[in-house]
Amino acid sequence: MEKVEAIVEALPFIKEFHGSCMVIKIGGHAMVSEDVLEKTIRDILLLYFVGIKPVVIHGGGPEITEKMERLGIKPKFVDGLRVTDKETMEIVEMVLDGKINSKIVTTFIKNGGKAVGLSGKDGLLVVAKKKVKKKKEGDREIIIDLGYVGETEYVNPEILQILIEKGFIPVVSPVAADLEGNCYNLNADLVAGNIAAALKAKKLIMLTDVPGILSDLSDKASLITRIRADELEQMLKEGKLRGGMVPKVEAVLTALRGGVERAHIIDGSREHSILLELFTRKGIGTMVEP
Amino acid sequence: MEKVEAIVEALPFIKEFHGSCMVIKIGGHAMVSEDVLEKTIRDILLLYFVGIKPVVIHGGGPEITEKMERLGIKPKFVDGLRVTDKETMEIVEMVLDGKINSKIVTTFIKNGGKAVGLSGKDGLLVVAKKKVKKKKEGDREIIIDLGYVGETEYVNPEILQILIEKGFIPVVSPVAADLEGNCYNLNADLVAGNIAAALKAKKLIMLTDVPGILSDLSDKASLITRIRADELEQMLKEGKLRGGMVPKVEAVLTALRGGVERAHIIDGSREHSILLELFTRKGIGTMVEP
Amino acid sequence: MEKVEAIVEALPFIKEFHGSCMVIKIGGHAMVSEDVLEKTIRDILLLYFVGIKPVVIHGGGPEITEKMERLGIKPKFVDGLRVTDKETMEIVEMVLDGKINSKIVTTFIKNGGKAVGLSGKDGLLVVAKKKVKKKKEGDREIIIDLGYVGETEYVNPEILQILIEKGFIPVVSPVAADLEGNCYNLNADLVAGNIAAALKAKKLIMLTDVPGILSDLSDKASLITRIRADELEQMLKEGKLRGGMVPKVEAVLTALRGGVERAHIIDGSREHSILLELFTRKGIGTMVEP
Amino acid sequence: MEKVEAIVEALPFIKEFHGSCMVIKIGGHAMVSEDVLEKTIRDILLLYFVGIKPVVIHGGGPEITEKMERLGIKPKFVDGLRVTDKETMEIVEMVLDGKINSKIVTTFIKNGGKAVGLSGKDGLLVVAKKKVKKKKEGDREIIIDLGYVGETEYVNPEILQILIEKGFIPVVSPVAADLEGNCYNLNADLVAGNIAAALKAKKLIMLTDVPGILSDLSDKASLITRIRADELEQMLKEGKLRGGMVPKVEAVLTALRGGVERAHIIDGSREHSILLELFTRKGIGTMVEP
Amino acid sequence: MEKVEAIVEALPFIKEFHGSCMVIKIGGHAMVSEDVLEKTIRDILLLYFVGIKPVVIHGGGPEITEKMERLGIKPKFVDGLRVTDKETMEIVEMVLDGKINSKIVTTFIKNGGKAVGLSGKDGLLVVAKKKVKKKKEGDREIIIDLGYVGETEYVNPEILQILIEKGFIPVVSPVAADLEGNCYNLNADLVAGNIAAALKAKKLIMLTDVPGILSDLSDKASLITRIRADELEQMLKEGKLRGGMVPKVEAVLTALRGGVERAHIIDGSREHSILLELFTRKGIGTMVEP
Amino acid sequence: MEKVEAIVEALPFIKEFHGSCMVIKIGGHAMVSEDVLEKTIRDILLLYFVGIKPVVIHGGGPEITEKMERLGIKPKFVDGLRVTDKETMEIVEMVLDGKINSKIVTTFIKNGGKAVGLSGKDGLLVVAKKKVKKKKEGDREIIIDLGYVGETEYVNPEILQILIEKGFIPVVSPVAADLEGNCYNLNADLVAGNIAAALKAKKLIMLTDVPGILSDLSDKASLITRIRADELEQMLKEGKLRGGMVPKVEAVLTALRGGVERAHIIDGSREHSILLELFTRKGIGTMVEP
Repeated sequence: MEKVEAIVEALPFIKEFHGSCMVIKIGGHAMVSEDVLEKTIRDILLLYFVGIKPVVIHGGGPEITEKMERLGIKPKFVDGLRVTDKETMEIVEMVLDGKINSKIVTTFIKNGGKAVGLSGKDGLLVVAKKKVKKKKEGDREIIIDLGYVGETEYVNPEILQILIEKGFIPVVSPVAADLEGNCYNLNADLVAGNIAAALKAKKLIMLTDVPGILSDLSDKASLITRIRADELEQMLKEGKLRGGMVPKVEAVLTALRGGVERAHIIDGSREHSILLELFTRKGIGTMVEP
Repeated sequence: MEKVEAIVEALPFIKEFHGSCMVIKIGGHAMVSEDVLEKTIRDILLLYFVGIKPVVIHGGGPEITEKMERLGIKPKFVDGLRVTDKETMEIVEMVLDGKINSKIVTTFIKNGGKAVGLSGKDGLLVVAKKKVKKKKEGDREIIIDLGYVGETEYVNPEILQILIEKGFIPVVSPVAADLEGNCYNLNADLVAGNIAAALKAKKLIMLTDVPGILSDLSDKASLITRIRADELEQMLKEGKLRGGMVPKVEAVLTALRGGVERAHIIDGSREHSILLELFTRKGIGTMVEP
Repeated sequence: MEKVEAIVEALPFIKEFHGSCMVIKIGGHAMVSEDVLEKTIRDILLLYFVGIKPVVIHGGGPEITEKMERLGIKPKFVDGLRVTDKETMEIVEMVLDGKINSKIVTTFIKNGGKAVGLSGKDGLLVVAKKKVKKKKEGDREIIIDLGYVGETEYVNPEILQILIEKGFIPVVSPVAADLEGNCYNLNADLVAGNIAAALKAKKLIMLTDVPGILSDLSDKASLITRIRADELEQMLKEGKLRGGMVPKVEAVLTALRGGVERAHIIDGSREHSILLELFTRKGIGTMVEP
Repeated sequence: MEKVEAIVEALPFIKEFHGSCMVIKIGGHAMVSEDVLEKTIRDILLLYFVGIKPVVIHGGGPEITEKMERLGIKPKFVDGLRVTDKETMEIVEMVLDGKINSKIVTTFIKNGGKAVGLSGKDGLLVVAKKKVKKKKEGDREIIIDLGYVGETEYVNPEILQILIEKGFIPVVSPVAADLEGNCYNLNADLVAGNIAAALKAKKLIMLTDVPGILSDLSDKASLITRIRADELEQMLKEGKLRGGMVPKVEAVLTALRGGVERAHIIDGSREHSILLELFTRKGIGTMVEP
Repeated sequence: MEKVEAIVEALPFIKEFHGSCMVIKIGGHAMVSEDVLEKTIRDILLLYFVGIKPVVIHGGGPEITEKMERLGIKPKFVDGLRVTDKETMEIVEMVLDGKINSKIVTTFIKNGGKAVGLSGKDGLLVVAKKKVKKKKEGDREIIIDLGYVGETEYVNPEILQILIEKGFIPVVSPVAADLEGNCYNLNADLVAGNIAAALKAKKLIMLTDVPGILSDLSDKASLITRIRADELEQMLKEGKLRGGMVPKVEAVLTALRGGVERAHIIDGSREHSILLELFTRKGIGTMVEP
Repeated sequence: MEKVEAIVEALPFIKEFHGSCMVIKIGGHAMVSEDVLEKTIRDILLLYFVGIKPVVIHGGGPEITEKMERLGIKPKFVDGLRVTDKETMEIVEMVLDGKINSKIVTTFIKNGGKAVGLSGKDGLLVVAKKKVKKKKEGDREIIIDLGYVGETEYVNPEILQILIEKGFIPVVSPVAADLEGNCYNLNADLVAGNIAAALKAKKLIMLTDVPGILSDLSDKASLITRIRADELEQMLKEGKLRGGMVPKVEAVLTALRGGVERAHIIDGSREHSILLELFTRKGIGTMVEP
């Protein structure tokens, strides 16, 4: 009986989100164990069955490194940036598309969902270009060749729209190509932001392994639960954000500028984090408004 | 957190019922108080928002009687059966369509639903005919004229299908007409059975004020939780069912013969009875299988 | 043979109106006798079968009064305005939706039409708000509480568009609710004007019991057969219109401002008045142009 | 006023035929004067605007003969049958498609209709084959070569269905080709019967210059107003039908066997004959039932 | 093997044109022999089967003259311009619609295509008006009555769009009518330009009997292979174009102004001229860019 | 000019195949070099642009072995059959989905095509089950556990139909899962046969590295160019087929039984083999008829 009442209490939220599209970025940390992944997928399936149209984007840095080590390939770094040569790119694709994407699709199947695994290349979803990294060296600006590291040139959301409309759940890896057939490894957070904007999604939800945006990086209790995009942009400029949070926040800003209604940065390692954020009044992470 | 887990536990049920149509007969007893009605409507709205397509049928006997008394009209009975003359029929329509149906639609609005109130006349949903009541009198069979008491001739489900497809929740009263424009008062249980069959609904759910079908009428603890249609038909023939349960069971048998997958008879006065029946493994009433 | 020639003469008019939507307000006076109502419905059905898409709006003041008297409820008036308390509102709904709307739908069935009875609540067609009536009292302006007397907040024409497209004839009562579920009695003329505007109907046709707009109220022969909206607005401001004609003209102006091509005010008590207005060059009432 | 009543009296017929498809064969005699043609076209346009979907088929024998004489070509006959050589066939096409079909389309335009002129070749509507005419000569059966005289091999009604659905009125000539590109002159009555069957039209209406089928060929008063297909077939076998009536009756039988509900043979030279047949209870010609 | 390689080499062109609409004007010279016509039709069919949507427009001046001579009618000229009286117009329609259009449709059938022959009257594709020809006579400007010589008033491309979408190839003659039903003979080049603009075709291809536009009319080697619309307009103003090239160039300019991407003027008497122009990098005629 | 004529000669074949679906199995040998792969993809793209709807299936045995060796994993064999344990299965997925499938999709992009890479798991295209391998050992039959080697349980072609209809080219790997989420490696030939049958494709084309089916395995000149399914089945039973040809023939028989019109086994290593087989009268491999 209590259970039924719990469901009934979720009604106003379900009502609000019914029929809307949400882009969910699963962090590499959901990949740590099959159990965590499965719980996350089940939460997403619940969203699906209460009428929300989820699009899943995933990354996979840690697994790429692991696989390279396994194959005896040493990562090369120039000035702290990983260089992706042809051989590395092949491993990137195998791990992202052949392992992680595949595992997510399988986990959907196991739990009764109909997912479709895609990379940015499928249906030309994401057209990429080589990322140009510049560096000041004395007076001159020099370009660092990072190899097959790319960024989004533009997004064709048609393939996602077709699949969503027909009731499938798309699962997207951050591999994409340019029109000459060169493949690139893209930052999954940024791809999520671009796709959310192209779909004019209701929400972009970034699952990460910290509680959200902190006003004081050294104090986990300083979580910001609600912030406007312009305030967040200010924080970014002032260097108050570090590490992996930077591309997440850039993705959030891209999405909100592109028409997404709200973006959420939440702790994906916490159980049912997506549901707690969406179906309770308080939420658990940081919500960003336009 | 517990609440969220409760919702997640409902996932297998939500998954099973997603996208299916259910016909729900609301008994006169849900009309006793606004509070009970509102709780029932909210449960139905929850079904709607988790992807179920509900069609609501209601009756209203007690309110008709009350209104007649209010207007100083004495019910006439012939041999224990109420006779519906022209004046009574007018009151029937006013109460069923102008009061009860209207109140249900209003309650949906208040709780965020888009309902459409219909009678059987709208879009020729139910084409009715006069009910012929016969009686043995000695050797002869005589026909008792009950006036405007009718039964279903056939159902045109088109109007319901259109509204359901477009995301509306139809609310249907048991008033219908023949093609000459004579209006009749029909038994709401039987109309629910006919409509469930015409829609090939997944479920017919009869809300009543007893726990379900009892194997021993004198023992409330003798609830049958699961029964096959042929066994139920046998009970009906053997006279093991009484009063208001008779048309309910007839409606259930009509629905199952017409292709409905399961029918449920449950206690609508119990809070969240619909959800408890659908979203828990045990259920709370009687489930009838084909 | 003459009959066939008469039909052929109507061809240019039929051609002109083919496929267009017309909103027809039936006045309380069509309700005086079943015979008058039936003739009006048959004329509307004829429009339907020659390719016009009619939407019918009705009122019902006189019948409400009668029913209240029948129930021994005394109308309360404050400053000449009827106050609609909760009990009165219940009667309003019963009479408008359960009796008049119902009778119109039945009359369509009897004559071979497929009508669907709606109130403003169905499919949230009309979202209403409480009507605020102000009154000067000395220097101060005081607000008179008229109870459940409402006006249109906005119109969602979707339910009408769906039904029209599928070949049904919608019949709409002027009962509507706000999103909190409070029900209101609205002026049917004004509702007709709002709905005609929302549908961008080709015509709004107001059936009343006078020949049309008179330039001299005391002279029935002073009928204006054709007038522009701005001229009519001027007449309204100058107080040259009285009584029931005032809301009719307001509705006409609303409709024309909202994109309706022509509005007609005609004598609905005259036999075949709609057809005479539409299918003869001269017409019989007042036509208002934008 | 009388005119309006005449229209109202047609309502039951309009209602019955609303939305149905009718194939109308215009005889060469409607071509005698522009005035007769225009009246016939106006009647067909009226059908169109009251919701009937007309398909017009025409012939044109007399005009072909006239044009051949004009060009100084002598018709050749073998055993009383006209032989259509290549040169004649060219004239047939020019007259049927370039003159008669064209004139009918123009007459629709002039009266506000949107017609589309087609031959059987357009969209492969009618695929034809050479007509094999055999003749007994003593004991032997010899084949008479009639040149480009053809008959229907099969009908692809798709092009008609597309045009009808989009609100156009197709006008079809009896010229068709085989898949090798040989063009043939077909009997227009038979083509009308084949097309009516392929469309499963509600009615096939043959306009001719006699009142209908006569039980006694010498007595114009012996008109049969109603006959069953089997009775008519019997008359045909017994040789009770002569001349141009034979292919008309064969076309009627083909249509009825193919699912057409009723066929009518009426005097097209009588003013408003189509309307008198369809919109009055008595009709004016012969109605054939399956 | 070489053949297969030839096809593969065409891939980039096929890819570029896939799914686009092209309006092709067939000159009277393709009518010289059946063999030339058939080769042209086969090339157009090839375009069709590689995913291009062709619309064919044809003229027919020479055949009209020939037919008139055959019928012993003398062309009348006023000031060098042919006057089209009623009798001549009848011949124009018979030849254009009943002979040339018909022959083109037949040739499509023979080669496996599904064509639909239309004139500008069909579906009111082209609404025409009388062409007003003025002439200076001393100080006064006088109007020369050319009879039924017309020009395009406006184009309703709906019928073409419907047919194209359903996979038919429309074949259009330059006969059209005004809304009063007067038929006119239009210049086929100009009709092709108007239709290409109305369809926003990708290309307008004018087949003629010269290699294209020459910079020096006396030197066939002076072919301009590529020119901008403004440059071409300049040539027209400077009188550098003569005879039949003038309406062709006017049509091209109309089309390009109306949104057509490219126009081509090529020698239709050269075998496979359309394919050589479209599927080889150099082309063979004049391409005009906006 | 010769090139254009070559294209025109292909017209009858293009016409025949226009709009039909073909399933093409690319053998591992097309993977030998990027050049061979690119030529094959270009041929398939040509099919696409002339109106054929291709579905590509690929295998990848040799690359899996190579990758395993690279990772230092030794293939285990039981009785000559490769055992696929969990670790091996992970490599299978990475190679098939993350490398080969990905490379094919990239090659389409590079050549202007819009492909979508899928495994059998996507959209539940192929539901698999564990393959049960039995072996006689003396009198007893024992089951050999091959691990994650699977076979098709059933095919849901919906995802393919949606993608084809929208103009995408699906590229499918032979990885699939059961509904519990266990992933299996399937034989790509057999998957191609199952999918061709489920799609009721016009053709199944098996690209391999031999010329086709030989009547005498030792004589390459003994190519059978045309054979009926029953004859082929007989050859299979009689053991006249060996090695990789066995599953190819089983796939062909499955496809033909399932309604595929023709199956072709051809030498994919020969340049333009697909086009030579489809667009020349003789063909180059073995065509199997039902």
